[in-house]
Amino acid sequence: MKYSNGKYTGVKIAYIGGGSRGWAWGLMSDLAVAKDIEGTVSLYDIDMEASKANQIIGEKYKSVEGTNSFWDYEVASSLEEALTGANFVVISILPGTFNEMASDVHTPEKYGIYQSVGDTVGAGGIVRTLRTAPMFEEIGLAVKKCCPDAWVINYTNPMTLCVKTLYRVFPKIKAFGCCHEVFATQNLLKTALKEIKGVDVEDRQDIKVNVIGVNHFTWLTSAQYKNVDIFEVYKEFVKKYKDTGFENSNDDNWANKYFYTTQMVKFDLFHRYGYIAAAGDRHLAEFCPGSWYLNSPKTVDDYKFALTGIDYRWRNLEERLQKSKDLVEGKEELKLMVTGEDGVDQIRALLGLHDMITNVNIPNMGQIPNLPLGAVVETNAIFRSDSVQPVLAGPIPKELYSLISRICGEQEALDEAIAERDLDKVFNVFANDPQIKLTLPDARKLFDEMVENTKEYLKDYFN
Amino acid sequence: MKYSNGKYTGVKIAYIGGGSRGWAWGLMSDLAVAKDIEGTVSLYDIDMEASKANQIIGEKYKSVEGTNSFWDYEVASSLEEALTGANFVVISILPGTFNEMASDVHTPEKYGIYQSVGDTVGAGGIVRTLRTAPMFEEIGLAVKKCCPDAWVINYTNPMTLCVKTLYRVFPKIKAFGCCHEVFATQNLLKTALKEIKGVDVEDRQDIKVNVIGVNHFTWLTSAQYKNVDIFEVYKEFVKKYKDTGFENSNDDNWANKYFYTTQMVKFDLFHRYGYIAAAGDRHLAEFCPGSWYLNSPKTVDDYKFALTGIDYRWRNLEERLQKSKDLVEGKEELKLMVTGEDGVDQIRALLGLHDMITNVNIPNMGQIPNLPLGAVVETNAIFRSDSVQPVLAGPIPKELYSLISRICGEQEALDEAIAERDLDKVFNVFANDPQIKLTLPDARKLFDEMVENTKEYLKDYFN
Amino acid sequence: MKYSNGKYTGVKIAYIGGGSRGWAWGLMSDLAVAKDIEGTVSLYDIDMEASKANQIIGEKYKSVEGTNSFWDYEVASSLEEALTGANFVVISILPGTFNEMASDVHTPEKYGIYQSVGDTVGAGGIVRTLRTAPMFEEIGLAVKKCCPDAWVINYTNPMTLCVKTLYRVFPKIKAFGCCHEVFATQNLLKTALKEIKGVDVEDRQDIKVNVIGVNHFTWLTSAQYKNVDIFEVYKEFVKKYKDTGFENSNDDNWANKYFYTTQMVKFDLFHRYGYIAAAGDRHLAEFCPGSWYLNSPKTVDDYKFALTGIDYRWRNLEERLQKSKDLVEGKEELKLMVTGEDGVDQIRALLGLHDMITNVNIPNMGQIPNLPLGAVVETNAIFRSDSVQPVLAGPIPKELYSLISRICGEQEALDEAIAERDLDKVFNVFANDPQIKLTLPDARKLFDEMVENTKEYLKDYFN
Amino acid sequence: MKYSNGKYTGVKIAYIGGGSRGWAWGLMSDLAVAKDIEGTVSLYDIDMEASKANQIIGEKYKSVEGTNSFWDYEVASSLEEALTGANFVVISILPGTFNEMASDVHTPEKYGIYQSVGDTVGAGGIVRTLRTAPMFEEIGLAVKKCCPDAWVINYTNPMTLCVKTLYRVFPKIKAFGCCHEVFATQNLLKTALKEIKGVDVEDRQDIKVNVIGVNHFTWLTSAQYKNVDIFEVYKEFVKKYKDTGFENSNDDNWANKYFYTTQMVKFDLFHRYGYIAAAGDRHLAEFCPGSWYLNSPKTVDDYKFALTGIDYRWRNLEERLQKSKDLVEGKEELKLMVTGEDGVDQIRALLGLHDMITNVNIPNMGQIPNLPLGAVVETNAIFRSDSVQPVLAGPIPKELYSLISRICGEQEALDEAIAERDLDKVFNVFANDPQIKLTLPDARKLFDEMVENTKEYLKDYFN
Repeated sequence: MKYSNGKYTGVKIAYIGGGSRGWAWGLMSDLAVAKDIEGTVSLYDIDMEASKANQIIGEKYKSVEGTNSFWDYEVASSLEEALTGANFVVISILPGTFNEMASDVHTPEKYGIYQSVGDTVGAGGIVRTLRTAPMFEEIGLAVKKCCPDAWVINYTNPMTLCVKTLYRVFPKIKAFGCCHEVFATQNLLKTALKEIKGVDVEDRQDIKVNVIGVNHFTWLTSAQYKNVDIFEVYKEFVKKYKDTGFENSNDDNWANKYFYTTQMVKFDLFHRYGYIAAAGDRHLAEFCPGSWYLNSPKTVDDYKFALTGIDYRWRNLEERLQKSKDLVEGKEELKLMVTGEDGVDQIRALLGLHDMITNVNIPNMGQIPNLPLGAVVETNAIFRSDSVQPVLAGPIPKELYSLISRICGEQEALDEAIAERDLDKVFNVFANDPQIKLTLPDARKLFDEMVENTKEYLKDYFN
Repeated sequence: MKYSNGKYTGVKIAYIGGGSRGWAWGLMSDLAVAKDIEGTVSLYDIDMEASKANQIIGEKYKSVEGTNSFWDYEVASSLEEALTGANFVVISILPGTFNEMASDVHTPEKYGIYQSVGDTVGAGGIVRTLRTAPMFEEIGLAVKKCCPDAWVINYTNPMTLCVKTLYRVFPKIKAFGCCHEVFATQNLLKTALKEIKGVDVEDRQDIKVNVIGVNHFTWLTSAQYKNVDIFEVYKEFVKKYKDTGFENSNDDNWANKYFYTTQMVKFDLFHRYGYIAAAGDRHLAEFCPGSWYLNSPKTVDDYKFALTGIDYRWRNLEERLQKSKDLVEGKEELKLMVTGEDGVDQIRALLGLHDMITNVNIPNMGQIPNLPLGAVVETNAIFRSDSVQPVLAGPIPKELYSLISRICGEQEALDEAIAERDLDKVFNVFANDPQIKLTLPDARKLFDEMVENTKEYLKDYFN
Repeated sequence: MKYSNGKYTGVKIAYIGGGSRGWAWGLMSDLAVAKDIEGTVSLYDIDMEASKANQIIGEKYKSVEGTNSFWDYEVASSLEEALTGANFVVISILPGTFNEMASDVHTPEKYGIYQSVGDTVGAGGIVRTLRTAPMFEEIGLAVKKCCPDAWVINYTNPMTLCVKTLYRVFPKIKAFGCCHEVFATQNLLKTALKEIKGVDVEDRQDIKVNVIGVNHFTWLTSAQYKNVDIFEVYKEFVKKYKDTGFENSNDDNWANKYFYTTQMVKFDLFHRYGYIAAAGDRHLAEFCPGSWYLNSPKTVDDYKFALTGIDYRWRNLEERLQKSKDLVEGKEELKLMVTGEDGVDQIRALLGLHDMITNVNIPNMGQIPNLPLGAVVETNAIFRSDSVQPVLAGPIPKELYSLISRICGEQEALDEAIAERDLDKVFNVFANDPQIKLTLPDARKLFDEMVENTKEYLKDYFN
Repeated sequence: MKYSNGKYTGVKIAYIGGGSRGWAWGLMSDLAVAKDIEGTVSLYDIDMEASKANQIIGEKYKSVEGTNSFWDYEVASSLEEALTGANFVVISILPGTFNEMASDVHTPEKYGIYQSVGDTVGAGGIVRTLRTAPMFEEIGLAVKKCCPDAWVINYTNPMTLCVKTLYRVFPKIKAFGCCHEVFATQNLLKTALKEIKGVDVEDRQDIKVNVIGVNHFTWLTSAQYKNVDIFEVYKEFVKKYKDTGFENSNDDNWANKYFYTTQMVKFDLFHRYGYIAAAGDRHLAEFCPGSWYLNSPKTVDDYKFALTGIDYRWRNLEERLQKSKDLVEGKEELKLMVTGEDGVDQIRALLGLHDMITNVNIPNMGQIPNLPLGAVVETNAIFRSDSVQPVLAGPIPKELYSLISRICGEQEALDEAIAERDLDKVFNVFANDPQIKLTLPDARKLFDEMVENTKEYLKDYFN
């Protein structure tokens, strides 16, 4: 990697899960317009064919209109090959298949437990973590061996436990996790400002927020646009839409109904707690007591959001497979699909090309003084040359402390249980999850069933 | 108060709730055999007749066989009168009447919520706190005014919030809360040592324990008798009795069925978490998720413990009223009823007559580093001349952190909500309590009903 | 204050010490080119004539070439008048006169104690603090009364204690202290990069540093330019110049000899401790044990830096008085004197016009976890809309901990002693200062003499 | 080791430095009257002849009048042999010979630095630590290997660094350090109570103190006897004797002049700081700035205490060698020499035979919240069955923070420097010690000379 004349060349990015049909194309697009960095993306995926398809697509970007940074794409035949020499590592993998995910999401329904996402916490999130963490142990150890100085950017869920696992196996790793949920909340606040005050905000980043919490259960303790305190504005906005929800799209893309939300969960939380919950309702609901927003399909309807079933994921996969084929074969014209994500800008900031302040998931070194040290938390951080440094976000407010410390503590306990491959300890976390409202025998039955369903990925736990 | 020849004379103890027909007689007995302290007990009670009866009984102790310390008893007509000049203040009051307590305990049953005690946490505990805290504000402020250097010993439940309230209104108060639940657990460990190892332990205090947690949800992280690690012993004991429970009494006193327990909750918690829960099952159950041990009357039966209904308290009160009458009138012979409680020994330790190590409820100054500073927690402390100093009990273990930090945080939030007399904030705590498994609308309905039932004592909240 | 079309109008800045003949003109110039903010500067000074002169000069800026922001200047006849309605408050005052400063700096010389600046720590710094803190108490209380929401920017020394005093009398004040010493160090690192690596750095701000410590005794624990770790570069630079010093100017302005430094103190500290001390040598020397760099005039010569005598300040004042006169009378043409200071950019950041990361002095809320909470420390912070939020700078490294914690602790003790107006407590701090190498009786003699010399400003302590 | 009928038999104590002619006989005496424990003491010393002499003396105790516990004594030919099977390990060694100690204490005098003890901090203490720490590394690792569950009691100086080293090489070691300096202060307070109030205190332990600080620089933040606040009493006492000192002995034993003290240092510290320094003046003086109490022999005279020269130690050794010979040969009758030290009572407490509260040196786990975690500090602790648990002593008061944190930080830095065998880092600690008032070149010259003088024991640092 070399810097001269305002530009880096020879940057190597290892992309773990490089066969992705979505995130990958977004990254390719974002890189193609990042004119001050250039180099090679090494694609690694357990599905090597998928990597090969992406290599073809990636190379095609060189000739797409609007491209002004010309990246090479290569297929790595092993994790080590991808990582060796890497300056940056991007991790975006699917742990297991949609079959496992189907079990995660739908098995609990037999017991009256409904999940809107099922990939972070709750019954589904916990079992997903069981199979994901060992993969991240492998990646973390490989980074330690092949590229210990590389920056590692994770997009995979469960975010908190993925990042935690990397640090557990390699405490000096320079890793962080990125999530765009806060961005969507900033956009909602933009909308509120427009609607209540008639103020146009150009960019969501002009809304300055203090972020605090854990991934997918982040909260804003302040939000300001120029000299306007947005809490006052949001208060009015919530008052107006609290009972009906806020429908901000008349898009009738089939997929949207699976992600349907009208912010009623977010509004209820603000109304009751006075702080802005900063993730989508489908995520927020899963961190709260099971009886609040996910008590039954009816409750979900009352709060006007959707449970994202796995049928969606299958159907969407099909579409994406077709699209990949079409792009490779040239049947569909390749275009820039710039994402609005922070990833490439973070890479540029780490290379010293600009300063950046954004939210990030890293171990708590005191940025949230009243959560456990070492637990992975989400706050703002400054990204500068070779440095990610959290801002002191302050303590969790008294009103929210129980909601958040409870989750944070369970994630720490789950990490320990997984490190010890102790399913009984895992079950203790499972039984105490806010979503689980079962007697202990029933909870154990469900847990065992979910483990059984996904056991192909859980061999480690049965040695 | 004067010390000479190994004895204090002129000690003044203010007894708030001094009309008590139980605790008071125990204290009188314990004082009557404390030969190195002597003085006056000033009885204050909103039921002045009850104080007068106790004055008569107290004076009678001077001639009871076995008495070797001769205390004077007086009736105070006001809180201030009782407190003025006091060296020690004992608080043991009933906040409201059994009518309110009946609402606390039984109203939630209509919503499928069963409580074994209902005076600490859960629906009943929270509403009880609403009416108790203002009384403790009054007492705390009166102490500040009348006897700021006195030591204040609280026995009233909800223990944590009572002590917290005293410190909130008078941060320099020298107050602590005493609870005997840990003692019972030490006795259980004595039994286990006898049964598993054949070892006779003379005194429960010979079993050295490290206590950690919040009142009624305390845990032992170590327990040792001489060179025997009791955890190993208890492991065997739990293995033996985990499925059947341990019946340690064939006493058929009518009252016992209301307090029935076979330690199955305690055993299950040890079996799953590896630490010794150190309170009675009836209390422990209320701190855990509602579906674990209190899901339904059947679950309670499965874990072989009892729900203490208010009918018991009425019947017991009747008996005690009669006993009081008989004692006053001399129909029943007065005897020493030494309690085994620590109260008088703590007073003696605070006077420098001996050193004492026992568990106590005081604000967290770091004795449990991973619970919020200022929250009232329970750990061991050393009692010496004019000093109660907590031992560094260490952090809550990872496995237990969520269970305990969640409760501790809610108690802090409840204190704040009460300080602000904000019932909506109180409801947030209520809705998030582990025992409440209701939808938000149902939870609110229950909350409003319970508030309505006890509104006579909640006028402060409606100004 | 109003924001529209990308510009704020009606901003009010209260300038305490607004008669300044230096800082004030710099601020006027910086404001004159800040095209997105406009408003009024209210000048308050105990020397009202000086304010009036500055009003005239300020108004003249409207017609200076290059001005694109047109500020009104007014003279306030009282502190309250200046503060009322202010959005920002700038404090830059001289506590006492150069007579007092002469005593601060030169009296200790009779006792063999030599000071290079004498305004921060050491004998001179402590006595200066005695007269400064009460003035800041007055200012802080006036802010509380007149403009509690205003941002307060302090430039006055002793920086740490000035800021601390503001927070002591008004804990909710939004105040911070600015200092440019770190900037000069960034410039030195620029030079080193050029000399050792041939790399041209455009702007000192492109060098990303982590700042940690207390004002004038700040340290960099990392410094990075793009992908270059500057510590490696600086190591070579120090090796080269450690024994000779680095002379970076052949400017022969008479004043320069008073500020002469060749960085030998800074180099010695890096050589021995491995961290970059980030203030001028004249300041750094005063925080270290007296025998290291200020043992005698010879030691100062050995380390090739200068003691800034008060004769300089008198001569410089004369020049500035003349310049003020000439500017007012139009004998000297007024020009923009843009400062390179951060002040106006910080104001713009606080108004949400851009994000800014820079070093700042505020109370420790955990940004340096191993210094006392509440003590004023210097670290980086992010400036955004109505918010200054420290980054988590991390703990003081083990090697530096004693040097820094010692000073930080003394500043806390001094604050307490001043709050209590207790000169005996102040003396304890004085006697334990690193610069004081006197027996206790001699130290007291010196202290009493310095207090006597400046007693006109210390009346508060003798009531 | 076996417990029955109230008594332990088969206890094994390994005594490292078992050839001692002083401490060893005291321990033998204390054991001989400890009727509830019995077993074997295994004596290990690099001077095996000395161990053999002590074995003979130890065995003779079986027939000394007053003995009621009959211990066997054996000579171990290796550290491992002594440790294997040990339940307790006592460490009391002389690191190097009096030749090295002579260099430690007297070399600095050539540079105008006078030391009253020279074994803890200051020039002598630091160089002594250099040769002691590697020995403790060896012992710590041997404990880890041979008897990881044993309790390790250290009496060797420098106490803090000896204990720290044990924990550094074996973090799970159950080690603590004992020091009797606090006891002497309790005795002084007894005397003050008698003199000022006419109150007789039977036992120094009846005076309840809160201990805070580091070894030999401990402070009492409270002291209470029954209902008497001793601070008030001590205030009067200090007022009376502050200027003349308090001579409490007319004993004219030749040795006493070497330990002469009249408490004037302690009185001055109380007078100025308001807290009771709780070590002998000879120790206290060494922790304060060099110019305060050790500026010159005259200053030492002014404060009426003595510098303990090595001539004393040689002469005393001679006496003790003769005594050992006489005891072995039966020329002197062996008698019980009960010590008043806590050691044997601590062993009994760790065996669960009684509870004990006393001061102890262990790593900071939060017992002093504002000193670095992991640094070895001195506070009270409770000793119970297999447990030493510090009390929460509270933060260092603001007035004392700089004095103590500075030392504590240097000890942490010294530990790190020694772990890395980095003499340049050690020099940084040396140059910053309060006692060193030399220029950096002179400080280095002295340091190098002291290292050279003792290099036989410093080979590790020159590989």
